[in-house]
Amino acid sequence: MSDPVFNRVAIIGIGLLGSSIAHAVKAYGGADEVRLWDRDEDVRARAARIVPGIVTNTAAEVVQDADCIILCTPVGTLASVTETIAPHLKDGAILTDVGSVKAKAAADMSSTCPDHVHLIPGHPIAGTEKSGPEAGFASLFQDAWHILTPQARTDTPYVSAQDRLSAFWATLGARVETMDAARHDRVLAITSHLPHLIAYNIVSTAHDMESVEEGEVVKYSAGGFRDFTRIAASDPTMWRDVFLTNKEAVLETLGRFSEDLAALQRAIRWGDGDTLMKEFTRARGIRKAIIEAGLDTAEADFGRRKDD
Amino acid sequence: MSDPVFNRVAIIGIGLLGSSIAHAVKAYGGADEVRLWDRDEDVRARAARIVPGIVTNTAAEVVQDADCIILCTPVGTLASVTETIAPHLKDGAILTDVGSVKAKAAADMSSTCPDHVHLIPGHPIAGTEKSGPEAGFASLFQDAWHILTPQARTDTPYVSAQDRLSAFWATLGARVETMDAARHDRVLAITSHLPHLIAYNIVSTAHDMESVEEGEVVKYSAGGFRDFTRIAASDPTMWRDVFLTNKEAVLETLGRFSEDLAALQRAIRWGDGDTLMKEFTRARGIRKAIIEAGLDTAEADFGRRKDD
Repeated sequence: MSDPVFNRVAIIGIGLLGSSIAHAVKAYGGADEVRLWDRDEDVRARAARIVPGIVTNTAAEVVQDADCIILCTPVGTLASVTETIAPHLKDGAILTDVGSVKAKAAADMSSTCPDHVHLIPGHPIAGTEKSGPEAGFASLFQDAWHILTPQARTDTPYVSAQDRLSAFWATLGARVETMDAARHDRVLAITSHLPHLIAYNIVSTAHDMESVEEGEVVKYSAGGFRDFTRIAASDPTMWRDVFLTNKEAVLETLGRFSEDLAALQRAIRWGDGDTLMKEFTRARGIRKAIIEAGLDTAEADFGRRKDD
Repeated sequence: MSDPVFNRVAIIGIGLLGSSIAHAVKAYGGADEVRLWDRDEDVRARAARIVPGIVTNTAAEVVQDADCIILCTPVGTLASVTETIAPHLKDGAILTDVGSVKAKAAADMSSTCPDHVHLIPGHPIAGTEKSGPEAGFASLFQDAWHILTPQARTDTPYVSAQDRLSAFWATLGARVETMDAARHDRVLAITSHLPHLIAYNIVSTAHDMESVEEGEVVKYSAGGFRDFTRIAASDPTMWRDVFLTNKEAVLETLGRFSEDLAALQRAIRWGDGDTLMKEFTRARGIRKAIIEAGLDTAEADFGRRKDD
């Protein structure tokens, strides 16, 4: 275990990500002490039993003397949470988050973040479809990207704070990158937000047809559909906030998706096999790029049944 | 190993499914002898080296004295393949297929299938995104549904042929069900065909945006998108034929999907969080049904990173 980067880390919001950070610190280091708090009393009680670290009773207590405060609550709550804890943050503390949308997160947090605190928004590209403190596990961030979207500041204390936050996430196993917030939101709109919207939507469509087809949609779900239901099992509150706070990029991406889908629909209606063949073959290219980049370890799991 | 159901089985088309049947017969039984043929000479040569069974040089040879002939070629080829082999089929042989679309498959095969042959179309709900003879493996059909869509005949020889074909697939590990072909095509349109179309489409949309975002779409593909690229890596020819031959059911399902997506798009544009929350929560229900039905063994694989 490396030397701890921080003395005390505070985690606010004890869901999948918050509890995973606590497990990861225990397993790999990064901080001497982890404190956690959640606004839900029941979640606090459950977390106290199973998540490593000290679960505090109040938000003021959790951030007391913390060197780094990590907000793990839905993006829509970041402004109010920051406002609540602002009076209790120590000089030179680092305030970060794990929200899937960065431009709005940065704006919301900076509006109430004190000047003596270093605000460095962040986003781990890691997760499962599980939620709640029971879902956390230590290896969640291993080999996952962690994107920091720092503010446009080059003063030494801020740059040093960035280095410490990067070192913390690297200790948990992440590959840390820095990116402009707006660019982050555009890239994630296509790689994450749109896929989730589509997954939710196809599962809803199927749900309505299920009553017509008498249970057979669920029964024969092995055929590709099951992958979508897993994605669509993700936390609804988190995803509602993602779509409300990354509206422009999601609508732009969704517009392109719908245009492309209309073209495929037309090709099916008119029996245009050449267009279908061309598009399907093209889609293989990007998969190939992902495998060549070594980004899909699931490739090794060859015997698995999946589609058809 | 159980008593073999058939003396000789003929497999036409040595891709993922054809080669998997050969491997499964070797592992679990079902037939004394497997013969295979593919119209592609290179595929025949590769298969001869790695797939268990005798690879023949001609279609006439492969079906000679076969008790059961399994067409494992794209749906669009079933009429012509049946026509080619028709003169060489023995009395009382069973002709079946593994096509993902059943109404058109049945019509195409029956148009050229001799009267002395029992035509029983079928579809294993099993597959991976791999193709070619190298992709086959013995356990592909274990615990997978196998849907037979028999013709409306109740004469004893035909019913007995159905029983034998069911026993064959059961020997390979499948759970065999019987269904009306049109109903099969409607159910599979939502559980399999639409998910594949959507996956192909989102990957194409991303491909176009990749040039704008300079490689970062691939790099950060862990966020849900990677699941789609895996689905979209499936065989283009097979899927072109699926969409061309199950056109009506796919267009109907796609119409519902697009209506539902337009409603979500509107909710995002107008910041209607309540509608998003309601739809996302509803989508969880069908996932729950799948898990309760014990249909997703991947659930056990808890530590896996997947979305966000």
